[in-house]
Amino acid sequence: MRVRKRKGAEEHLENNPHYVILNPEEAKGHWREVFGNDNPIHIEVGSGKGAFITGMALQNPDINYIGIDIQVSVLSYALDKVLDSQAPNVRLLLVDGSDLTNYFEDGEIDLMYLNFSDPWPKKRHEKRRLTYKTFLDTYRQILPEHGEIHFKTDNRGLFEYSLASFSQYGMILKQVWLDLHASDFEGNVMTEYEEKFSKKGQVIYRVEAQFQ
Amino acid sequence: MRVRKRKGAEEHLENNPHYVILNPEEAKGHWREVFGNDNPIHIEVGSGKGAFITGMALQNPDINYIGIDIQVSVLSYALDKVLDSQAPNVRLLLVDGSDLTNYFEDGEIDLMYLNFSDPWPKKRHEKRRLTYKTFLDTYRQILPEHGEIHFKTDNRGLFEYSLASFSQYGMILKQVWLDLHASDFEGNVMTEYEEKFSKKGQVIYRVEAQFQ
Repeated sequence: MRVRKRKGAEEHLENNPHYVILNPEEAKGHWREVFGNDNPIHIEVGSGKGAFITGMALQNPDINYIGIDIQVSVLSYALDKVLDSQAPNVRLLLVDGSDLTNYFEDGEIDLMYLNFSDPWPKKRHEKRRLTYKTFLDTYRQILPEHGEIHFKTDNRGLFEYSLASFSQYGMILKQVWLDLHASDFEGNVMTEYEEKFSKKGQVIYRVEAQFQ
Repeated sequence: MRVRKRKGAEEHLENNPHYVILNPEEAKGHWREVFGNDNPIHIEVGSGKGAFITGMALQNPDINYIGIDIQVSVLSYALDKVLDSQAPNVRLLLVDGSDLTNYFEDGEIDLMYLNFSDPWPKKRHEKRRLTYKTFLDTYRQILPEHGEIHFKTDNRGLFEYSLASFSQYGMILKQVWLDLHASDFEGNVMTEYEEKFSKKGQVIYRVEAQFQ
């Protein structure tokens, strides 16, 4: 997600250290202390403006959520949503998805979400896709054995690629949705992007993939 | 595929023993002799009226094709197409897809096609779907190590099910197409059904799945 640079975004993040973890290296291995309980921790890599992570946090108070994005302005909008929600079980992280092992101990994360990741459609940008094998290496390390990635997108090319990438990595596809909104899937929390593009008739794809 | 009963269909098949293998148990282990060469053998389970298998045979003269269907009338229409085509590299088989090990030796088939198989949408009919695990057991036996199934359908539910079924069986998804006709896939041979429904705007799904 690309947004215009927001004035004061950086200060906004720095002024809210309860929600925005400013020294995430120090939290590595201590996330249960950060949240103050032993509940499972789910992360969203590329959390954008935060509608999904905040909605999930409100829907599931017994799960802790961490929204991760690399863009200051984008994360500052997510912070607005988190502050509005008053959800006690959500935190935000301004880091790169390829560096996750710097911030999470092996197996510290219980489940991972990828939503509407940048498709990087050109073949020469394949390595930048968040479902490329080097990213899967990282995710596998911070997830438990048989950990899962729940991924949704409206981008056909990225979904085709990701199904094959998960499978070729040795992951099992537990379930696949080729039109999520036409299915009987319950409790779907939409991202801002999903809300906008599904209204235009765009099909939403979803998969739950599991490491072996 | 369901078609009206065709008068004389059975006689039509019996009168063309060159193309319709009437005692397929006897051909088991001897298919290369049936074709008179050592070319690879590809089969289509559920070959319907034969447009695909005949089209493939004409397109690829160095591959032998066997179209398999359980319905007499349907196979008789496929025979019409085969006779019209004069293709020397195609045969037809009136047998059930679950009995394939009766007619093919282990590893005797090089590649397998499933096209627009009956979706059997009700959960209680899952076992009848041609991508259910018991069918995969059969296919694996007659295919070589790392053998492949190439599957296409316009049925969303069946495709969702089949991706998960292949994956959970331990097969690798080599490539997935979520809109075959909008892709740059070359050499696609359409079935009768595909021709009809893609004209109506129906998306065609395709996957190449490989045994491990």
